[in-house]
Amino acid sequence: MVNRLEQQLAFLCEIDKLKSILRKSRIFDGTREETSAEHSWHLAMLAGWLHEYAREPVDPFHSVKLALVHDIVEIDAGDTFIYDKTRQQDRLERETRAAERIFALLPEDQRRDMWALWHEFEAGRTPEARFVRALDRIQPMLLHAMTGCRVWFENGVTRSQVLERIKEIERHIPALWPVALEIVDRAVREGMLANS
Amino acid sequence: MVNRLEQQLAFLCEIDKLKSILRKSRIFDGTREETSAEHSWHLAMLAGWLHEYAREPVDPFHSVKLALVHDIVEIDAGDTFIYDKTRQQDRLERETRAAERIFALLPEDQRRDMWALWHEFEAGRTPEARFVRALDRIQPMLLHAMTGCRVWFENGVTRSQVLERIKEIERHIPALWPVALEIVDRAVREGMLANS
Repeated sequence: MVNRLEQQLAFLCEIDKLKSILRKSRIFDGTREETSAEHSWHLAMLAGWLHEYAREPVDPFHSVKLALVHDIVEIDAGDTFIYDKTRQQDRLERETRAAERIFALLPEDQRRDMWALWHEFEAGRTPEARFVRALDRIQPMLLHAMTGCRVWFENGVTRSQVLERIKEIERHIPALWPVALEIVDRAVREGMLANS
Repeated sequence: MVNRLEQQLAFLCEIDKLKSILRKSRIFDGTREETSAEHSWHLAMLAGWLHEYAREPVDPFHSVKLALVHDIVEIDAGDTFIYDKTRQQDRLERETRAAERIFALLPEDQRRDMWALWHEFEAGRTPEARFVRALDRIQPMLLHAMTGCRVWFENGVTRSQVLERIKEIERHIPALWPVALEIVDRAVREGMLANS
């Protein structure tokens, strides 16, 4: 018989594995890739300190919670590079199986809450989910800008691919749109992003 | 003239450096040390999902915010191992200088809020600060337990040193005290923690 606290600690120990999931983005000095746990912390900071720019009013705590948990499923499913069309195809299926296993470690009420948070983020149908999804687009761009946009260059990403993927920034955090465009334009000027 | 958003982004880019600060604790599989950014995410998760065990009622969002920002000063000051008496002596001085530089990147109102959060955590005089400080004691112990308590062994830490340092757990999150004691006792039994 596992009690409530034991269930919670089993979950909180299990999610330590998010520290071993590597993303494509490189940290500020370019020395290595960012882990998904670090990304989640950074995204939570953006959610907590930039919410005044959300186009619709958002609850800051709810936004921070979405940021903290949005990538936990990557423990089993791995990080799926946004421009990897093949792996994007079965991403949701892989992540749903991951959620089933990992969230099941929690007691019933928190399991339900965690599912709700993850689904909400994936569906992007609440103001907070739209806001955090848009932040999840700008956060890697800030890292790319700090590291010479090598990730775009090395993966042969094009300007139109990026613009397609970051529409949510324009729609949901308009104040950040000029920042995003400036990063794209500079990357094109510096030959790190193909102008097509 | 730097505008508000530029100041906020300068801060949010600067704190990326917390991903390069290494702590003593090793991640779940023992392969490497945890970064302070990862630790901050993990602590925020504990704060968000264990607040029902705080001895005094706590505001969950406020606790999560304290967890997210409590180590930002380590960008300049470095992580100070809790059992390193020499470096603990000037820790607060080093961290205060760091706070002065890093928080100054923010616009005035958020700079004030950030100072207040960091001071509150350091002083430990509110229910949320006491709660998160106690979580900050148990979080590395959970990692140690997953990695055979090598950190204690390699640094010649003793049982009485640990017990002295984790009193806050007993005081502020009594439900976690048996968990902490069990980790200590097992480490002693397994010869990873000196029984003195």
